[in-house]
Amino acid sequence: MSSTRPTIYDVAKEAGVSKSLVSLVLRGSDNVSARSATAVNDAIKKLGYQPNRAASDLAAKRRNLVAVLIDDYSNPWFIDMLQSLSEILTPQGYRMSVIDSLTSGSDTDPITHALTMRPDGIIIAQDIAEKSLPENMPPFVVAGTRFTPLESDTQFATHAVSNDDFLGAKLATEHLIGLGHKHIAHINVHSGAGQKRLASYTASMKEHDLVPLANETPGPATEHYGYTQALALLESHPEITAFFASNDITAIGVLGAARERGLRVPEDLSVVGYDNTPLAQSRLVSLTTIDDNSIGVGHNAAYLLLNKLGAKKSYPDVEHTLVPQLVKRSTTAAPRLN
Amino acid sequence: MSSTRPTIYDVAKEAGVSKSLVSLVLRGSDNVSARSATAVNDAIKKLGYQPNRAASDLAAKRRNLVAVLIDDYSNPWFIDMLQSLSEILTPQGYRMSVIDSLTSGSDTDPITHALTMRPDGIIIAQDIAEKSLPENMPPFVVAGTRFTPLESDTQFATHAVSNDDFLGAKLATEHLIGLGHKHIAHINVHSGAGQKRLASYTASMKEHDLVPLANETPGPATEHYGYTQALALLESHPEITAFFASNDITAIGVLGAARERGLRVPEDLSVVGYDNTPLAQSRLVSLTTIDDNSIGVGHNAAYLLLNKLGAKKSYPDVEHTLVPQLVKRSTTAAPRLN
Repeated sequence: MSSTRPTIYDVAKEAGVSKSLVSLVLRGSDNVSARSATAVNDAIKKLGYQPNRAASDLAAKRRNLVAVLIDDYSNPWFIDMLQSLSEILTPQGYRMSVIDSLTSGSDTDPITHALTMRPDGIIIAQDIAEKSLPENMPPFVVAGTRFTPLESDTQFATHAVSNDDFLGAKLATEHLIGLGHKHIAHINVHSGAGQKRLASYTASMKEHDLVPLANETPGPATEHYGYTQALALLESHPEITAFFASNDITAIGVLGAARERGLRVPEDLSVVGYDNTPLAQSRLVSLTTIDDNSIGVGHNAAYLLLNKLGAKKSYPDVEHTLVPQLVKRSTTAAPRLN
Repeated sequence: MSSTRPTIYDVAKEAGVSKSLVSLVLRGSDNVSARSATAVNDAIKKLGYQPNRAASDLAAKRRNLVAVLIDDYSNPWFIDMLQSLSEILTPQGYRMSVIDSLTSGSDTDPITHALTMRPDGIIIAQDIAEKSLPENMPPFVVAGTRFTPLESDTQFATHAVSNDDFLGAKLATEHLIGLGHKHIAHINVHSGAGQKRLASYTASMKEHDLVPLANETPGPATEHYGYTQALALLESHPEITAFFASNDITAIGVLGAARERGLRVPEDLSVVGYDNTPLAQSRLVSLTTIDDNSIGVGHNAAYLLLNKLGAKKSYPDVEHTLVPQLVKRSTTAAPRLN
């Protein structure tokens, strides 16, 4: 043994593996065969190698930071997901920082913005407009049903976790149909999830020989948009007795429109949202909605990301598609008999 | 002139100034006297110096990133502030990333977390528990009334922008008193702003010979907390005809409690919030509240931060204390005559 301190290269040479593999072992990655790990650990012991923690962190570019990209803070669906991401990532030493598309700066796309923070990983929980992801993408996971450049990628499923939006929208529509509603309108929202919910609503209506009715051009997921669209639909189609809104925040807008027109909820108008946000759960709103399992999506997205980050513990068999559930509250009832 | 390319040191020597001053001029800082700027620019011209943009950015440690620290995503007061910060910072080339205290990771304080992203500046819009700020703090601004280690600092005012919480709470309390309410309860919330609002409410009640009534131990600013405290107060003091809640999110909880007890709002119970969040503005809730001028706070916090960052344009005479306003909506009215 030479008098100078052994380096990672000495360990690699001794173990007969690459330096990268030694790095992986030092970082506790599970993506290493037991045999290689043993060889590396034996070499470390034999040479008396002491990993320089700062240097190995630098080499691994670990900042213990996960960037989370969301659309818009005023749509509170993301709150449960953030909380559940944190429940898994925080005990593993990761911190989270959030970027939303509205305030992140219009000059650059959110991915480029996220990369400037040099995160270890990225959770994409917003629709991404770019045609392709940059080549220097760190490990990432798509959370929720999103428009992304990956959709046509055969590997897409391995990157994504979401609730089954088609099933959820079917549950919402069939809940209203089951109560006896025939004139059920939909608030159509422009997003990956929104378009899947629209398709499912339309299919369910047709399956029951009912006529689908929605604002034709999808709009933003805001309370104001739900309000204006509901007012317009109620004006042109006074026969409407129920709304399935694409999400809770637009459902709040529908409830505002009902109030404006003097319609009692649920006596005169039934309303179903989607997301089961804290707002829907509040006793004031008490909104019938679809629980999109944001908590499960957050947990599983975190597990997938940890697998990709080569965390010490790995999580096999993470479910990519979670089952949504109808949550019946105070905003739905059978229609009045005319 | 030597055959090698002139360096920033050559420029500094030629202009008779320090290298740091040349850097400032290259970054377009206004914190440089006209005379020095002219000397530097003349030297640049004479030597044919071409600044290496990447190197000068690195030297200046500019990442064009501003970290924003907030308390909790489920309290939507911060949405307007973020939007207005962005309106000023984005055109100046800055991007924002948000860290909340709930999900940022319990192992480290939010400031330490923010520093790992190496932001150019920090907006502190949460209460900070630490006894002192780290020495390597970048330029920062405190937005809103906060508990911070700076409160006793005589320089504190130069770092802070907020609405006048004492005045705002006085407006809320006096609005209810002016309507004829005598039994006005307060939802007392644990935060820098909350404690100022409590003190102001108490003072206003006493000034009008009324008895202040609030939950004794301040709690978290959540809908659930507002709900449970309002239920308890209504149970022990059925004479209550009005609530001034410390903020909109707890006011939503009070509205839920009213609903639970079969009290109509505003006929049986008046409710005032604070913050004028998008929720308060929604037609469904239509909450009487105090506009805390989050937009002005965001704009002015951004101006102050840009001044500290040595931006090209500087903003003199930024107001540090903004005037709040009462916004009368549907949740307040005169008490019923008994």
